[in-house]
Amino acid sequence: MRVGYIGLGIMGRPCVRNLLKAGFEVSVWARRPASIGDLAVTACATPAELAGRVDVLVTNVSDTPDVESVLFGENGVLSGARPGLIVIDMSTIAPLGARRIAAGCAGRGVTFLDSPVSGGEVGAVNGTLSFMVGGEQAAFDKAQPVYQAMGKNIVRIGDSGAGSVAKACNQIVVALNVQAVAEAFKLADACQVDKARVREALLGGFASSRVLDIHGQRMIDDNYVPGFKAKLHQKDMGIVGETARALDTALPATTQVTALIDALVANGDGELDSSAIARLISAA
Amino acid sequence: MRVGYIGLGIMGRPCVRNLLKAGFEVSVWARRPASIGDLAVTACATPAELAGRVDVLVTNVSDTPDVESVLFGENGVLSGARPGLIVIDMSTIAPLGARRIAAGCAGRGVTFLDSPVSGGEVGAVNGTLSFMVGGEQAAFDKAQPVYQAMGKNIVRIGDSGAGSVAKACNQIVVALNVQAVAEAFKLADACQVDKARVREALLGGFASSRVLDIHGQRMIDDNYVPGFKAKLHQKDMGIVGETARALDTALPATTQVTALIDALVANGDGELDSSAIARLISAA
Repeated sequence: MRVGYIGLGIMGRPCVRNLLKAGFEVSVWARRPASIGDLAVTACATPAELAGRVDVLVTNVSDTPDVESVLFGENGVLSGARPGLIVIDMSTIAPLGARRIAAGCAGRGVTFLDSPVSGGEVGAVNGTLSFMVGGEQAAFDKAQPVYQAMGKNIVRIGDSGAGSVAKACNQIVVALNVQAVAEAFKLADACQVDKARVREALLGGFASSRVLDIHGQRMIDDNYVPGFKAKLHQKDMGIVGETARALDTALPATTQVTALIDALVANGDGELDSSAIARLISAA
Repeated sequence: MRVGYIGLGIMGRPCVRNLLKAGFEVSVWARRPASIGDLAVTACATPAELAGRVDVLVTNVSDTPDVESVLFGENGVLSGARPGLIVIDMSTIAPLGARRIAAGCAGRGVTFLDSPVSGGEVGAVNGTLSFMVGGEQAAFDKAQPVYQAMGKNIVRIGDSGAGSVAKACNQIVVALNVQAVAEAFKLADACQVDKARVREALLGGFASSRVLDIHGQRMIDDNYVPGFKAKLHQKDMGIVGETARALDTALPATTQVTALIDALVANGDGELDSSAIARLISAA
């Protein structure tokens, strides 16, 4: 199986290394050829040329319009793809956009699998990313070796867009769990009680969560080196809000925590881990 | 070590059984003697009489005023206690109340340990309750065998009131984690995506929590048999709000989720598990 990759960023480069390690022949297209560096890959001149060479093409760009441009733009993937091509899109994009893109691909015999991930740079390097996938079961099954080379917990959620929906849900839960811990710790501070002991006790019970464990420690240390940058969480919460509004769905707590992430970024702290909203909460 | 117990309710009775199983001689005072049933304990006529017979006295009543009444009221614990008595209070009470009560006890040579629990009826029956304890280290150490007979994860958080603060933090985090999952699932529903698959995928990543696991399943099943009753969560969130206001501490997300629990109880659903606020969220 020949694999293509577009998007050699902080997540993409380690994914390509893991694909090479798994024995795949990998071709790439890079907007900035310098980003290829020492990767043992074949460089193509355009997304179209790359699409013509591979069976599975992975895209890992930032937002919905970037995916649309690389697929449907001039010299884009669709203009060079052979029927049967499977596109695994690891970007976090809008669920409704994912459905539209999948439909556009299907018209040309290409299967689009929205496949956002969680696990961050560490997960990408270690090949332990969690994949949340939307799209055809047959293509999902066929592409398993490619997913397996890059990740571990690989769940097909449902039809096109369902992977993006699960990722949106993930970002809601993480943001609100951060606020939950931050408000609890604010009360502990007000009562002059040691947050570290509270974290320890709560980890043993019903309030236990990955956010309490990892971000709770960040709050105790007041150390917001990312992690997952606030400006990226902001982008994802934008997708959440856009989707909810398009479907006439009110998400009050989600909306207010989005405002906190917006404020963090507006304050110039977009490069901090998004759990730094705890600073805004404790100062309020 | 002779142990006394006051509060033979749904939590208290299994705790007494576990104390007896651990070999303690247990005496009790019960407002309604019928609640003693078949427990192999010595019944006392008043809290004062009970206090005079034991080294460690466990109280497990509902709210701050109930604790105050049983300790400081006529024929209360303090009127019969010998110096050196240790009171383990398992009720969930106000942190500032716990400090006041501990000071009142200390004046009479009695050590008060605010020791709220999490783990519910199942934890009480299995002897796996988590204890969050505030008060003197020496008394905490001395009472270890009593705690160990009833629970597992036993953490001394700090001085008097600190156990109650940790419990307040626990209730904040649980309530907001419920709302996080409920809003995420609401978005999944709006997108016609299977919540069960979303839950499965999210449990593998950063959004993972006990609430997503246990209450997430309750939401999928729309089954809110308690669990932890909404009316009890409402009482605890009242303590949270009262404490925050007394210390001039704003907890905006906590306040709005408290309003949801209030609405659930006002709707006549106080006997449901408190995670039933998911119904209000999905209907809004």
